[in-house]
Amino acid sequence: MKKIVLALGGNALQKKGESTAEAQKKVAEKIGALIADLSQKYEIIVAHGNGPQVGNIMIHEESAATEKAPAMPLETAVAMSQGQIGYWLSQAISNAFIKEGKRPKVATIVTQVVVDKNDPAFRNPTKPIGEFYTAAEAKKLALKNHWTVKEDAGRGWRRVVASPKPIDIVEKKAINELVEEGVIVIAVGGGGIPVYRTKILKRLKGVDAVIDKDLAAERLAELVKADVFVSVTAVPNVYINFGLKDQRALTEISAKELGGLARYGYFAAGSMLPKVQAAVGFVKKDRTSIITDIDNLEQALAGKAGTIVKS
Amino acid sequence: MKKIVLALGGNALQKKGESTAEAQKKVAEKIGALIADLSQKYEIIVAHGNGPQVGNIMIHEESAATEKAPAMPLETAVAMSQGQIGYWLSQAISNAFIKEGKRPKVATIVTQVVVDKNDPAFRNPTKPIGEFYTAAEAKKLALKNHWTVKEDAGRGWRRVVASPKPIDIVEKKAINELVEEGVIVIAVGGGGIPVYRTKILKRLKGVDAVIDKDLAAERLAELVKADVFVSVTAVPNVYINFGLKDQRALTEISAKELGGLARYGYFAAGSMLPKVQAAVGFVKKDRTSIITDIDNLEQALAGKAGTIVKS
Repeated sequence: MKKIVLALGGNALQKKGESTAEAQKKVAEKIGALIADLSQKYEIIVAHGNGPQVGNIMIHEESAATEKAPAMPLETAVAMSQGQIGYWLSQAISNAFIKEGKRPKVATIVTQVVVDKNDPAFRNPTKPIGEFYTAAEAKKLALKNHWTVKEDAGRGWRRVVASPKPIDIVEKKAINELVEEGVIVIAVGGGGIPVYRTKILKRLKGVDAVIDKDLAAERLAELVKADVFVSVTAVPNVYINFGLKDQRALTEISAKELGGLARYGYFAAGSMLPKVQAAVGFVKKDRTSIITDIDNLEQALAGKAGTIVKS
Repeated sequence: MKKIVLALGGNALQKKGESTAEAQKKVAEKIGALIADLSQKYEIIVAHGNGPQVGNIMIHEESAATEKAPAMPLETAVAMSQGQIGYWLSQAISNAFIKEGKRPKVATIVTQVVVDKNDPAFRNPTKPIGEFYTAAEAKKLALKNHWTVKEDAGRGWRRVVASPKPIDIVEKKAINELVEEGVIVIAVGGGGIPVYRTKILKRLKGVDAVIDKDLAAERLAELVKADVFVSVTAVPNVYINFGLKDQRALTEISAKELGGLARYGYFAAGSMLPKVQAAVGFVKKDRTSIITDIDNLEQALAGKAGTIVKS
């Protein structure tokens, strides 16, 4: 059986503006049914984003913090969002099995992802999270909480955090053992809980950052020796000149060619670019990457849809 | 290797009143080192409570809820607390391995626990959670959110939820596969995410309730065929006439005798009683239960401390 890692984008988990638990569970049902179905043919690990969810957790934690009930830091909030989204996905996948009269075999593993404390990203935080503030509020909060704050595209000031590169995954062996036992594993949620190794003792220590979920999922795909890495996003293919009159969908393409297009600036940073980088990074002889949407996922795995990246 | 399930009480996770993430991580270090050490001799599954943590999550979720960032329901908050506490424990145990120059083998599994929708507990919710309100506030919130509210020992009104009995554990196979591969597994956090099976389709559906963590951990111990079930609590032994002049520590005792003392009302409901019930429920020929504190855990496993319950 081929082993595949699916990195689920935000739209596989949440419809725009519908952020109650009930609404998000409903969205999870669709992808849950598809994953249960695909698990007949593939060993599956599911990674997922957490942007809106961890944003809301941080809003609640920070705006309702008291001395008795202090706010959790971002790294712990990522762990909380892994529990939350992992539960919804596990339940949705389980229910798809139950519907077919089968025993569910799914588990969510809380996942720590190791980053380098000297990653240049820590000196230049760029990833905006949480609420918008006025300049004055933002600067006050920055002093109080040791935040970096930046003006965000005319919409107000926000906290920005580092987005360092994923290096290692603490729970990789447990994840791999389960998937090889036939369990669908949900892991590296939200790019993983960012931790670094302390200098002398090499202890794991959480750090407030957000790891790109496509890069973290790709790292996991390498570590568990997956055959296929898939970014499940909002569009059926990668496009060049996206949104323009001469927009063109990429179908089968070599990693070399796609990497070249990325270097020429064809893809938007923070959007398609990290997916393309993750896809290109994974491909080797006998290793394929795919970028597509939910509706085309099954066909793309059969080589008949999506952008398929080969060596 | 003997397989043991440890149910960690609140004091193994939090010092009274010290609820920042940093403070809780520090407390986790002690139990983490002990668990890493015990894993040389035993296969270990760790269950844990979540009372203060899920209480704080609900306070933040409810008091800072907006239309854009709605409050998560209790069942999802339990999942969030599993991610949170599971992360802290995983990291603490991992760091204990790293200190000894060993590879960490730990994983937290987000766990759903099946309850019966017809459990009488749902008709008589008794478990207080979250904030205190005035009678008027409480009644207004009860109407708005379909809560049951009750006056709590003269301290104000609180939401009360059902505490139904655990029946099955959705992730039991994944948990058992991992522990038999030598991974220390953290599972059924906070008694597990309460779910029931819908009447006709048997789908899993979350329900706002709090399952007793000792009963849930005991259920897991049965399902994974553990040899020893341990409630790790604040006191070294179970006592009769606890706190009185003629207080007496129980050392080795039969399940039958301990069950009899429980029926005679020797143990406090919501405190020692569920631990005693869980311990008595687990014991059979070749199956032992232990109730003790962290400091006596290793000696108790060697048969030299704690209250040891045998058939």
